[in-house]
Amino acid sequence: MKWLKTILFIKTSGKGFYNFTDAINAQLSQWEIEEGMAFLFVQHTSASLVINENYAPSAQTDMENFLAHIAPEGESWYAHTLEGPDDTPAHLRTLITNISLEIPVDNGILSLGTWQGVYLAEHRDSAHQRRVLLRVLSTTP
Amino acid sequence: MKWLKTILFIKTSGKGFYNFTDAINAQLSQWEIEEGMAFLFVQHTSASLVINENYAPSAQTDMENFLAHIAPEGESWYAHTLEGPDDTPAHLRTLITNISLEIPVDNGILSLGTWQGVYLAEHRDSAHQRRVLLRVLSTTP
Amino acid sequence: MKWLKTILFIKTSGKGFYNFTDAINAQLSQWEIEEGMAFLFVQHTSASLVINENYAPSAQTDMENFLAHIAPEGESWYAHTLEGPDDTPAHLRTLITNISLEIPVDNGILSLGTWQGVYLAEHRDSAHQRRVLLRVLSTTP
Repeated sequence: MKWLKTILFIKTSGKGFYNFTDAINAQLSQWEIEEGMAFLFVQHTSASLVINENYAPSAQTDMENFLAHIAPEGESWYAHTLEGPDDTPAHLRTLITNISLEIPVDNGILSLGTWQGVYLAEHRDSAHQRRVLLRVLSTTP
Repeated sequence: MKWLKTILFIKTSGKGFYNFTDAINAQLSQWEIEEGMAFLFVQHTSASLVINENYAPSAQTDMENFLAHIAPEGESWYAHTLEGPDDTPAHLRTLITNISLEIPVDNGILSLGTWQGVYLAEHRDSAHQRRVLLRVLSTTP
Repeated sequence: MKWLKTILFIKTSGKGFYNFTDAINAQLSQWEIEEGMAFLFVQHTSASLVINENYAPSAQTDMENFLAHIAPEGESWYAHTLEGPDDTPAHLRTLITNISLEIPVDNGILSLGTWQGVYLAEHRDSAHQRRVLLRVLSTTP
């Protein structure tokens, strides 16, 4: 078994879901991984990881609006407001989505379902460069 | 270390939580795994994975009703409605639960707590056959 | 590659987030792990795992209040009430946070972002001793 690792940098320009499935598969291909497990870990508290619908833009819109409904800006009971109105909602949206994910690798690519894409969910308004740690356990001898 | 893999197929008949703990343990037993880590990955965007209360049916009812309250059908702001009223809520319920889970294996079975069961959460009304990838890292020599 | 395991016991005294990042790093140090992956698994249905903001206490307050808003006590539709008013909300808060987490290890410690801490989220009112399984795949030869 082999252990491979890198950091994927994902540029964001405000709230939204950024599909980086291709970047992961490109790295797997460069490493010539055949089979194993890919581990993703986002090093932030206001951005998170999501695997969901990759096809219909309207489904993605609904997911973004859902997060805005469930963790809106400006709740009267927010105590943490010094870093801007989008800061506490960003932590809350991170809380209910994912910091870490693991995805099987088969035949050299992520074993995703037909409609699945891997997304960096940016929860803040301003542009960021986000860090996602990619670790792969290659299980072919 | 050894790497083992299969696909578990789970038949569903409408919304609900389907306990498949025994199916995982049966596979571990067939593989004669003693110790290691089990990785689960669901290849869908309208079904997800949940580990929760396995005993009281009323607790399970509350979890199902909670998902119906938090991501109800028919919100006026849903944009993605062509695939039926249960489609966007299914993506949203998937979003806040799990696509991937990992569970330690000890003494040949999943190291769950007393009250924990592993569930496939079906979020759509119609019957489906759901695919859960099971990967196991066996750590005994 | 090597496989190491232990159980971390975390004492709680009512609802809240308990930072146990240092306990994990201390164990990694004792095991002399250099690089690999740490896997956490909580064996409960009314406590969960969270990685989030480790600095501002007000951010943590907002996260705790968010869980209280999203899964409050005393909803009229709760069916599972025999174990106390905090029981069903505890299952629901567990449902939308994490049972399992995996975190890369580099240079002998968890590869967390600057503002990330690892928390046991206690969702019940009374004091508990919670069990978190720690498994580490050490990838240095």
